[in-house]
Amino acid sequence: MRLGIFDSGVGGLTVLKAIRSAFPEVDLIYLGDTARVPYGGKSKETIVRYSVECAHFLARFEIDLLVVACNTASSYALEVLKEELGIPVFGVIKPGVRKALEVSQNKVIGVIGTRSTIESGVYQESLKSAGSVVYAKACPLFVPLVEEGLIEGEIVDKVIDFYLRELKSTEIDTLILGCTHYPLLSPAIKKYMGEVHVVDSASALTEEIAPMVKNEGNASLSLFFTDHSPSLKNLIELILGEGQKPQLVPMLCSL
Amino acid sequence: MRLGIFDSGVGGLTVLKAIRSAFPEVDLIYLGDTARVPYGGKSKETIVRYSVECAHFLARFEIDLLVVACNTASSYALEVLKEELGIPVFGVIKPGVRKALEVSQNKVIGVIGTRSTIESGVYQESLKSAGSVVYAKACPLFVPLVEEGLIEGEIVDKVIDFYLRELKSTEIDTLILGCTHYPLLSPAIKKYMGEVHVVDSASALTEEIAPMVKNEGNASLSLFFTDHSPSLKNLIELILGEGQKPQLVPMLCSL
Repeated sequence: MRLGIFDSGVGGLTVLKAIRSAFPEVDLIYLGDTARVPYGGKSKETIVRYSVECAHFLARFEIDLLVVACNTASSYALEVLKEELGIPVFGVIKPGVRKALEVSQNKVIGVIGTRSTIESGVYQESLKSAGSVVYAKACPLFVPLVEEGLIEGEIVDKVIDFYLRELKSTEIDTLILGCTHYPLLSPAIKKYMGEVHVVDSASALTEEIAPMVKNEGNASLSLFFTDHSPSLKNLIELILGEGQKPQLVPMLCSL
Repeated sequence: MRLGIFDSGVGGLTVLKAIRSAFPEVDLIYLGDTARVPYGGKSKETIVRYSVECAHFLARFEIDLLVVACNTASSYALEVLKEELGIPVFGVIKPGVRKALEVSQNKVIGVIGTRSTIESGVYQESLKSAGSVVYAKACPLFVPLVEEGLIEGEIVDKVIDFYLRELKSTEIDTLILGCTHYPLLSPAIKKYMGEVHVVDSASALTEEIAPMVKNEGNASLSLFFTDHSPSLKNLIELILGEGQKPQLVPMLCSL
């Protein structure tokens, strides 16, 4: 079986890592759109256009299932991608929501993500329609922090305090990390938030796709990126914990 | 006379503002590539490709002169753009270097910028070939801070300390802000650095182009952006200090 996974950059590798550990024999093809990262501050129209381009690239490899490992793209593009590809398409929003509803006792749930993800309101709507009270907060500096390799220390703690102070004063007992970069900040966020359950989508997603996945294949792993940025190699190692050779697929654009 | 100006995003508006105040009657056409911002962490090949696309868009308006108001693009793409367009092309590197050499007493000069700008080495080479001692430092979090509207306060001070501590311990008497976003952090940087001359390229650039510019035209101002991101309006106001209506020119891309 062959799975395609795409993300705006390297953050989706946290999802790839979880899938690979749950289904070690499956063939995985990953595309990170590093030439246009981040998607988080961009408009819905642009995010949908970029997502369709990424999905069509992966579809050329005759994938059986597509995982959109980017919350921003999952917020806006999922329905369009299902129509375009004609194969099962999974995002990271629904699994995170399901997991949060499962672990929350008091049904007061917080969610953090990029500005686009939070402004899309998809997390909030899903959680509210399940009867939860929701507190949401956009944290635009978290991705650049992680991309800079800053995942602990004084600056990280200050920025976490800057964004999460309000959420901490609510009665939330569960916090959804609504961005695939955020699991790398998870220890620092947990330390700051105390007793709160922290939910990341990666493990929830692997449960969600399990019924569709046959764990058979050559265990191959291909990593494609649209740009070979200076920090790419370090970030791949930081997330996957191993040296993996990325391949470059430049885009052709016109204004 | 008609000037074209492009930048990876909104930061170049600090340059536009300086040009407009020096030459109030000239027609100005600005393009911000907000759909692919930031350029700072991307590869040379990708930065050159994006720059050529932006320049060709502006060339359609029959501009007489092109200003590359982005340090990253100025570092890599200037020669290619001169060949492609056949009109005078000015970047922000050379004016910043000239100004720094002018104001520095001891010829020990610091330069800060995005990772790509600093890794390109253009500032360092120009300054060294003029006999200066140079200290350079990439500050990747400064752009996201400004884009988040954070230009003063505790987090800003911590991040400035994180990046500039080493520079502060050297004998530099002049610091070049090698990124068009950084002038917004200028007060905080000056406070931290103390007696050091802080050079931003915008005013130096207007002096540089003065011999080529006839201050005549309709004083028109057109702002184009490749994406209408959620924070665009706020950032235009933060920099230009006035409401200006941006126009959208989406890109067509293929992978």
